[in-house]
Amino acid sequence: MPKKSLPLSKVYTLIEPGPVVLLTTAAAGQSNVMAMSWHSMLEFEPPLIGCVVSDRNYSHSLLNASKECVINLPTADIAAKVVRCGNTTGAKTDKFKRFGLTPSTAAVVEAPLIEECFASLECRVVDTSMVTKYSFFVLQVVKAWVDPQLKHPRTIHHLGRGSFMVSGETIKLRSKMK
Amino acid sequence: MPKKSLPLSKVYTLIEPGPVVLLTTAAAGQSNVMAMSWHSMLEFEPPLIGCVVSDRNYSHSLLNASKECVINLPTADIAAKVVRCGNTTGAKTDKFKRFGLTPSTAAVVEAPLIEECFASLECRVVDTSMVTKYSFFVLQVVKAWVDPQLKHPRTIHHLGRGSFMVSGETIKLRSKMK
Repeated sequence: MPKKSLPLSKVYTLIEPGPVVLLTTAAAGQSNVMAMSWHSMLEFEPPLIGCVVSDRNYSHSLLNASKECVINLPTADIAAKVVRCGNTTGAKTDKFKRFGLTPSTAAVVEAPLIEECFASLECRVVDTSMVTKYSFFVLQVVKAWVDPQLKHPRTIHHLGRGSFMVSGETIKLRSKMK
Repeated sequence: MPKKSLPLSKVYTLIEPGPVVLLTTAAAGQSNVMAMSWHSMLEFEPPLIGCVVSDRNYSHSLLNASKECVINLPTADIAAKVVRCGNTTGAKTDKFKRFGLTPSTAAVVEAPLIEECFASLECRVVDTSMVTKYSFFVLQVVKAWVDPQLKHPRTIHHLGRGSFMVSGETIKLRSKMK
């Protein structure tokens, strides 16, 4: 998808609703992609995101080594690929090739963007103090991309054991909240 | 809503999809409720949830004092009340009375459940090491309640500035993921 730069101040609008994301990492000639639902905004700007990448995941060591990653947001049309990513370890498989996900070069980090995703957030690890206890990495988004055509992306939200909620209608209420 | 006990092993199915929640707190005769979207699962069982409660929120001091809270999940029918909670400080207002939210007694903690919410998670703060830097509290869910009648709750997911995505259809894919 043709993506344009997104102001960093708007990154929270992508992460707050809680979509499943595809996390890409790269280190020492290896790259990987994993499905992830355990993430939270921590700060608006510069945007900080906390996320859990378990040490049982192959991505954990790539993230620890490179201190960089990309958070990619898929829509429901590629939900089957997302699940296959979540069911497979990257230790022995090139998941990009196997599941037909197209890596493309990021602007700032080594980890690739995923072409099939409508948004991509290039991130650097800025705090590892919670990694030992919770596998919780604090990321700073340094560059953000989004498909400007897609006004209401059909994001997917994990309900457990292969069930996903697909985003529905948007309602608008008068709010002073950011 | 008449709620039944939910096994703690299933708490992640409520939090992972990223709904807006209403956080209730109580300390020294005061209680409060705030809208919150910055949260993430940290562990399946016992269920650990990390969440940001800014020190600009009145709830921050109540949470710090009591080290307890309840995470309540609203549906779209009370979205207007959720937004009004988010727009108002509890320092001078009893938000339960003002917005017609009915507090009820929790089993384990002092903070109240909210009757109008379809699920409630009683929590204790178990780690405050990230509070100074990120206002990030680590909570352990000690008791969970859910309305067993509501199979597809219309949760709301904050898109920023008063826009909310309402949960849509559920799709099922073969998955080995929990």
